[in-house]
Amino acid sequence: MARIDFQTDPSRYRHWKLQFDGPVAHLIMDVDPAGGLFEGYELKLNSYDLGVDIELADAVQRLRFEHPEVGAVVLRSGKENVFCAGANIRMLAGASHGHKVNFCKFTNETRCAIEDATENSGQTWICAISGPAAGGGYELALATDRILLIDDRRSSVALPETPLLAVLPGTGGLTRVTDKRRVRRDLADLFCSTEEGVRGRRAVEWRLVDEAVPPSAWEARLRERALEAAARSDRPRDARGVALTPLARRFEEGGVFYGHVALEFDRGAGRAILTVAAPPGPPPATLEAARDAAFWPLQMARELDDAILHLRLNEPELGLLVLRTQGEAAHVLAHDAFLEAHGGDWFIREVRLHLKRVLKRLDMTSRSLIALAEPGSCFAGTLAELAFAADRSAMLIGARAGDNRPAATLRLSALNFGAYPMANGLTRLQARFWGEKESLARAEARIGEPIGAEEAETLGLVTFALDETDWDDELRIMLEERASFSPDALTAMEANLRFVGPETMETRIFGRLTAWQNWIFQRPNAVGERGALRLYGSGVQPSYDKQRV
Amino acid sequence: MARIDFQTDPSRYRHWKLQFDGPVAHLIMDVDPAGGLFEGYELKLNSYDLGVDIELADAVQRLRFEHPEVGAVVLRSGKENVFCAGANIRMLAGASHGHKVNFCKFTNETRCAIEDATENSGQTWICAISGPAAGGGYELALATDRILLIDDRRSSVALPETPLLAVLPGTGGLTRVTDKRRVRRDLADLFCSTEEGVRGRRAVEWRLVDEAVPPSAWEARLRERALEAAARSDRPRDARGVALTPLARRFEEGGVFYGHVALEFDRGAGRAILTVAAPPGPPPATLEAARDAAFWPLQMARELDDAILHLRLNEPELGLLVLRTQGEAAHVLAHDAFLEAHGGDWFIREVRLHLKRVLKRLDMTSRSLIALAEPGSCFAGTLAELAFAADRSAMLIGARAGDNRPAATLRLSALNFGAYPMANGLTRLQARFWGEKESLARAEARIGEPIGAEEAETLGLVTFALDETDWDDELRIMLEERASFSPDALTAMEANLRFVGPETMETRIFGRLTAWQNWIFQRPNAVGERGALRLYGSGVQPSYDKQRV
Repeated sequence: MARIDFQTDPSRYRHWKLQFDGPVAHLIMDVDPAGGLFEGYELKLNSYDLGVDIELADAVQRLRFEHPEVGAVVLRSGKENVFCAGANIRMLAGASHGHKVNFCKFTNETRCAIEDATENSGQTWICAISGPAAGGGYELALATDRILLIDDRRSSVALPETPLLAVLPGTGGLTRVTDKRRVRRDLADLFCSTEEGVRGRRAVEWRLVDEAVPPSAWEARLRERALEAAARSDRPRDARGVALTPLARRFEEGGVFYGHVALEFDRGAGRAILTVAAPPGPPPATLEAARDAAFWPLQMARELDDAILHLRLNEPELGLLVLRTQGEAAHVLAHDAFLEAHGGDWFIREVRLHLKRVLKRLDMTSRSLIALAEPGSCFAGTLAELAFAADRSAMLIGARAGDNRPAATLRLSALNFGAYPMANGLTRLQARFWGEKESLARAEARIGEPIGAEEAETLGLVTFALDETDWDDELRIMLEERASFSPDALTAMEANLRFVGPETMETRIFGRLTAWQNWIFQRPNAVGERGALRLYGSGVQPSYDKQRV
Repeated sequence: MARIDFQTDPSRYRHWKLQFDGPVAHLIMDVDPAGGLFEGYELKLNSYDLGVDIELADAVQRLRFEHPEVGAVVLRSGKENVFCAGANIRMLAGASHGHKVNFCKFTNETRCAIEDATENSGQTWICAISGPAAGGGYELALATDRILLIDDRRSSVALPETPLLAVLPGTGGLTRVTDKRRVRRDLADLFCSTEEGVRGRRAVEWRLVDEAVPPSAWEARLRERALEAAARSDRPRDARGVALTPLARRFEEGGVFYGHVALEFDRGAGRAILTVAAPPGPPPATLEAARDAAFWPLQMARELDDAILHLRLNEPELGLLVLRTQGEAAHVLAHDAFLEAHGGDWFIREVRLHLKRVLKRLDMTSRSLIALAEPGSCFAGTLAELAFAADRSAMLIGARAGDNRPAATLRLSALNFGAYPMANGLTRLQARFWGEKESLARAEARIGEPIGAEEAETLGLVTFALDETDWDDELRIMLEERASFSPDALTAMEANLRFVGPETMETRIFGRLTAWQNWIFQRPNAVGERGALRLYGSGVQPSYDKQRV
C-alpha cells in the first residue's frame, strides 16, 4: 500500500479552502469526490476519509502558527446542499480493522486540537451548518465552541450511525453530546437513534446547536458571532505569523530521518527506534529570532509528530517503540528556560501547546514505549517527558568502557511540572506518582540538577538502573519478550495502565467510547458479510444476530 | 442450555465454606473441581466459573444481612498449594462471547459488592494469600481492603493474562492496581507482563500487597488484622441477623413470577416486560417488625436482582426491557419515609445499600430500558429510580377511557436525591440534569407531590407525555424500531450515554477496562483457532498477527 503522508500545505489542499477577513478566518469544506486517499470510493456529499482529515489537521495547525491575527475560525461547507455527511461509509466498509481504528484515532486528535485552539490559543472555532450535518459531520461541529444552524427546513444535525450502520458515532459524538453540550441522556438516546436528525428550534431546545438562524439573518449573524469571538481573543492583530515550512525528511529502507529526529526500523525484532537530538546550541538571543520554523522546540515537535504518525499508519508491524535521546542536556534545558520565560508570548504559547499535543499523541500510540537512557543521552526537561510517557524506562549506570560520552543523567525542568498535561489533565509526573505527593515533591526539589541512574531509580523516575554488564542482556531479553506477546493484549493493557486517576471528556473519548467502537468494528452485526456497515448502500437489509452480550 | 440460577444458600455451596469466630468470619475458597457449571472443564487449583462466583455473591450478601455481629471477613483458600488460579481458562476458551462478557460483568459486580461492604457496611474484607494468587485470584484479593501475603517463597501474586492468554486481567485488575493500590504505572506494566508474578518483600515494595508475613507469624497476624478491622466496625455485636429466606419464584413459559416482581417475555417482539408492584400496605409499625426478608424493599430488591440476572444470562435475545410499576404510590413513599427515618439502623442501611446495588445492576444491563408509566402505575421514590435508569420514559396523560385506575403520576422522595448513587457517584437525577442545577432544584422542590404526565415532561423527568390516542401507536413504533437496530450498537451506545460526567474506579472498570476486554474477546490473537486463549494448555504455541491496530 502507498505510504500515507501527513505533510501537506494549503497550496496542495484538495478538500478545503481558507479565506481570511481580518481577525476572522473561514475554513470551507469542499471535498473533491475524486480525491479519496484509496481506490474504491467517491467522497460524495462532503464525506471524508483520512486524506481529508490530514488537510484539516494541517489547517488547524497553520491557523495557529501562521495567522496570529486570527481570533475566530468559521467552519462551513462549500457545497450547496450539504454540510458534511461524515466519514465515508464505503471507505470504512472496505478498510482493515487497523485502518478504521487509526483513522478514528487521528480524526479524534484533530477534533481535540480544534478544542485546544479554542480553549488555549485564543482562536475560537464556530461552526456554520447549512445543509445536513450527519454523523462525523455533526461530530466536527461538536468540536467547535458554538454551533449555528440555518433554520431552513433542510438543514439538520444527526448522529444516525446506530440505526443506519450499526456502529457508534465514534469521533467523540456520544461523549460530547452528553458531556460538552449537556444534552439530557434520554434526549441524546432519542437523537442518536433517529436517522433523519433534528432541525431548527428543536435542535436548540435539546442543546444540539446554539442557535437556529433564519436564512435572511444568516450571514450577518455568523459575522457577528465571529467578530464577538475574535474580540475576546488575546492574539496580537499585528504580529507576523511563522510559516510552517516543509519538513526536510529522508525516507530510506531503514527508517525516516529528519533534522532532529530519526525513526529507525529493526523489522526482524519488530521494533522502531526513535532518537531525538538536543538542540545543537543555545536558544536564540531574542524572541524575535526564535520566531521561525527552525526554532528547535517547534521543528523537533513537528518532526516527532510526523514520525509518530508515520509509525502508526505505515508501520503497523513494529509493535515496540524504543525512545532515545542524544546531545547536550544543557541546550535542552536552556530552551526550556526560554519557553518558560516567554510563556506569555503568542508564538511560544503555540510551541508549548504543540509540544503538549505531540506528547499526547505519543501517549495515545498503541505501541509499547520503552525509553533507554544511555551515555550521551539527554532526557532533560521537555525531552524527559519521553521517558515519562514510556511504559518502562531503563538507565545505564555510569559510562561505558571505551566510550567517552558522559554517563546518562536525567534532568528536570519547570516544564515537567505543568506545561504538558496528559489527556487526563495530570502531568506525566503526577500520573507517575499518583497518590504519592512526597515523591512528586522530591522530584520537584531536584529541578535542574543532573540525576544519575541509581538515584533516578531511587526517586522513582525510571524503572531500572542497570550496569553495563547487565544492560545488553537484560534489555535484549526484555525487548524480545515484549515482542513475543499478543499485540492486542498489549494495546489494551497499555491503554489502561497509562491513564491513572481522573478522567476528562478527552480520556472518555479515547477510553470508553473508542474501546466500545473498536469492539463494534469487530462485530459481525457491523462488519460481517451481512452486517450493516458492509451492506450500506447495497439495497440489501442487514440481518442481525439478535443476542445481546 | 440449562437455566443458570443465581439463587443458592450455604447449605448448597460446593465451593466455599463459612466459619464464624465472634466478630470475624472466614470465607474459605475450596473449589470442587467436579462442580463446574457446564461440561468440559475441571475447576482445578481453585479456579472459578460463574457457578463459583454465584456462591461468592451469595456469601457476600448473607454476611451483611445474616451476620450483624461480623465486622471483618477474612478471605482465604482451603487448598494447601494454591490461593486461587483465577477464572478457569478452559471454561473461557469454550464459552460464547456473550457468556464471557456476562461472566466478567457479574464477577466485577461481586467484587464491587465486596468493596461496598468494606466502605459502607462496616464489614471489612481482608485477604490472606497463601500459595499463588494468579489472575482472577489476585483480582479477588484486590477487591479486599487489606492483602496479607505469606512470605514463604511459594506464595505470590500475579496478573499473567497478557503474556499467557493474550487477554486482560479484566475483573478490575488493571484499574485497581494503578488506581486503588497506586502501583506506579511502569511497575504495573512490569508486573502485568510477568507470568511468574511477584513474591514477598518486592510485592510489598510495589504495593501489590500490604504485608508479607513470615509463616511463623501468619495466623496470629491475620487474627490481629481481622480483630483490628472488626473493632472499627459500627455493626451491632448482639443484634439478630435477618435470614435471607429462599425467594418464591414461578418459572413459566411466559415469564418468571415473584411476589412483587414479574418478568414477562414477549419473544416475538424481542422484549421483556418487568413489572414491580408497590407494597400491599403501609410499612411495619416498628423497626423490629421490619427485620424480615419479607420487608417489601428487601424482598422487592432481591426479586428485582434475580429477574435482571435471569434476563441477562438466560434470555439474551430479549433486547428490550420495558419497565413498569403498579400499585399504590402512597405505600411506596411510606416505605421510603421508613427507610429514610431509620437510615442509621444497620439493617435498614443494608436494605438501602442492596437497593443501590440492584439499581446499579440495572444501569449496567445491556438491554434498552424503556419505562412506561400508565394509569395505576406507581413510579414514586425508590420505584421512580426505574424510570430514571431508563434510556427513555413515556407517561400517559390522564386516565384511559373505561379504566377506573387513576392517571399516572410521578412522585419524588428524599431517597431520589442521594440514597442510590450510580457507579459514577451521581444520583440518577444529577446525571439526568448534569450541568442543570436549576432543573435539579426544581425537581427537589416537588418532593412528595404527585406530578402529572405533562408536568413531568416539562420538568424533564420523563421523555414523553402522550395522550391515549398517541400512546399505543407511538409506543408500538418506538419499540419496534428499537428492536430492529443492531443489538451491539445499542449496547455500546447505551453504555456511553448512561454515564455522563465524573468517572470513578468503578466506571473505569465497567467502561474503559471492560470495553477493551470485550474487544480482546473478539480478537483472533486471543480467541481464534491459533489464539492464546484457545490453545492454552494444549502444548501448541499461539501464533500472533503482529499488526498493532
